[in-house]
Amino acid sequence: MAAKLLIAASTDAEMRYATGLAITDQFILLDTGAKRYVLVSSLEYGRAKRALRGKRGFEVVLFDKHYDAIKKARQRKGAKVRKGSVLALIAAAYLKERRIEAVVMPRTALAIHVEQLKCAGITVGLARLYDRSVKTKEEIEEMKKVRDAAVVAMQRCIAIIKGSKIGNKKELVHKGEKVTSEYLRAEARKLLVERECESPEMIISHGTQSAYPHEEGKGAIKAGEPIVMDFFPRSMTTGYWFDMTRTVCKGKPSDALRKQWDAVKEAQDAGLKKVRAGVRTGTIHRAVLDVFARRGYKTTTEEGYIHSTGHGVGLEIHEAPSIHDKGTEVLKAGMVITIEPGLYYRAVGGVRLENTVLVTTTGYKDLTRTERVLQL
Amino acid sequence: MAAKLLIAASTDAEMRYATGLAITDQFILLDTGAKRYVLVSSLEYGRAKRALRGKRGFEVVLFDKHYDAIKKARQRKGAKVRKGSVLALIAAAYLKERRIEAVVMPRTALAIHVEQLKCAGITVGLARLYDRSVKTKEEIEEMKKVRDAAVVAMQRCIAIIKGSKIGNKKELVHKGEKVTSEYLRAEARKLLVERECESPEMIISHGTQSAYPHEEGKGAIKAGEPIVMDFFPRSMTTGYWFDMTRTVCKGKPSDALRKQWDAVKEAQDAGLKKVRAGVRTGTIHRAVLDVFARRGYKTTTEEGYIHSTGHGVGLEIHEAPSIHDKGTEVLKAGMVITIEPGLYYRAVGGVRLENTVLVTTTGYKDLTRTERVLQL
Repeated sequence: MAAKLLIAASTDAEMRYATGLAITDQFILLDTGAKRYVLVSSLEYGRAKRALRGKRGFEVVLFDKHYDAIKKARQRKGAKVRKGSVLALIAAAYLKERRIEAVVMPRTALAIHVEQLKCAGITVGLARLYDRSVKTKEEIEEMKKVRDAAVVAMQRCIAIIKGSKIGNKKELVHKGEKVTSEYLRAEARKLLVERECESPEMIISHGTQSAYPHEEGKGAIKAGEPIVMDFFPRSMTTGYWFDMTRTVCKGKPSDALRKQWDAVKEAQDAGLKKVRAGVRTGTIHRAVLDVFARRGYKTTTEEGYIHSTGHGVGLEIHEAPSIHDKGTEVLKAGMVITIEPGLYYRAVGGVRLENTVLVTTTGYKDLTRTERVLQL
Repeated sequence: MAAKLLIAASTDAEMRYATGLAITDQFILLDTGAKRYVLVSSLEYGRAKRALRGKRGFEVVLFDKHYDAIKKARQRKGAKVRKGSVLALIAAAYLKERRIEAVVMPRTALAIHVEQLKCAGITVGLARLYDRSVKTKEEIEEMKKVRDAAVVAMQRCIAIIKGSKIGNKKELVHKGEKVTSEYLRAEARKLLVERECESPEMIISHGTQSAYPHEEGKGAIKAGEPIVMDFFPRSMTTGYWFDMTRTVCKGKPSDALRKQWDAVKEAQDAGLKKVRAGVRTGTIHRAVLDVFARRGYKTTTEEGYIHSTGHGVGLEIHEAPSIHDKGTEVLKAGMVITIEPGLYYRAVGGVRLENTVLVTTTGYKDLTRTERVLQL
């Protein structure tokens, strides 16, 4: 196996995973299998040294010497030195020093980095560098903290909707204030940020908006309409995500909405029942499809069941495995995945229920800890 | 000029800038100069259509037809369909339909996308697609909203430090609670999130920690030590950033700290004085260097003035122009840049003062609206 090379900031999940470092600017990781060399500027050197002290198999390398050499060479040619691109040249110089001629970089590597490395005579292959799909105990503990934040925020929104009065035009009112998507989102975010989680995007859509699965949602929420709340916060300290969705309704739902919700719940249960180490992801998706087909719910390009059943969660909100129709990936114990069927019709609105679960050898452990209830 | 091609989510600044859309998943933009084609899946089609309704020069294209064709072709070969990579194939198919043989992609394009397009016979050049450095009035208004959030958070932290008592071991105490980096950060974040801003990273370092410019900071803050607060929030709704830093001290600073702070203030003023449309960025940096040299502050690899003087701010926290030693970019009216000199010594700690200003034809307009005061 060729050496692995990463040029990225810690926002890149592979970089975070491979180094454990939280660094804002791009830096370099060379993983030879025997050792992981972390190449940083003087700006990060002290911090990186301290963070990796005592961790086996790491070596922190100050790249200022290489940087200066490249800067000088470029100034002679009158070219501008740009940081994003100089890193690839530094990596190339270091690889040559170590007599490494070929590397594998992630498919998400920057095109400019790959191009520059190739120009410098390095052979570059593209592949996934690290399989992060099976989580360690420590990772699951970190994800549970994010779960706790998500659950608190979700419970708070549910409590507000439940405790609100029905005012003019059936609009919900809570403590004298109109209950809007924005209002609930602000409440939820306050609780998340107190728990060191961020959530720039947060779906709280309702009524016809909810018929579009990715619609963020806005405006006054009314009694009787579906309210889809999809929360996916990320820990600002560790970078781990959690993902969960509930669909609720203040007051009595229409028969059509009730039926649609019951179908999604049954489909989610059917999907969850298939979750177990050794199962192909497609099997889970098809269990969901079967329920919808049996209940007579049709899917077109724009309505019905128009997304996949789930995905892995970890240092990325969407990561392997992917649970869709033709999914051939085989579940392993320790994977953390979502099961999130939904039905979307313009006339009724959307319904989605999403739990994040830990795959085990005998089934799964539900991490979501929040009841599924339609009517509040 | 070849057509511009982007395959990215709206978190990519060029994509956000070129389309104005806020879409979580990757999608495709083809900008032929005459028209901007936005290629999305059915999941985003309705939203994208509504968001771009009435905007001239845009056309939203549903790419499901291409996607299905690729999926089928791949299934025949037994390969897995992966979303990140299928987008490049969709783009290639669409380019062929339009008889476009060459495109320019950003240097930050994903390597896998470039590789796949090249395999499909498309010529791909790498370049910056859009020059975002000169801001429109609307952009500046959006940045001012983020500024308002940053200023409120900064003022709150300053007020807490100022209003705190000096307790055991000179540690600051506010309303019975120890004043730590974490405590201030949580307070600041609450105010930011109320204003729809996120700030996953936020420097509140103090004492010897502050000698490392990128140290996030932690633990109990003491009287007499430098406290470096670097706030760079981002609007969750518009994606714009703002950037500002203040260095303060509760109680009397040491003579060394006072001198260091005065030098940084003078250097910042000297830098600001040079800001004007038509000036090369290097001129600004050298004005800062001159002050430090005259005052006898030395710079080594790890101590002194170890970073550049500033950068553009907008849809990225660091964007063009870059204000450093050899900076040859010429300032233009409408650019929004930081001027942020600092001095870092292990024995004293760090001092940094950072203002974000709008470049004008005659000088600059300071957007920062926060006094520079050392002793609180």
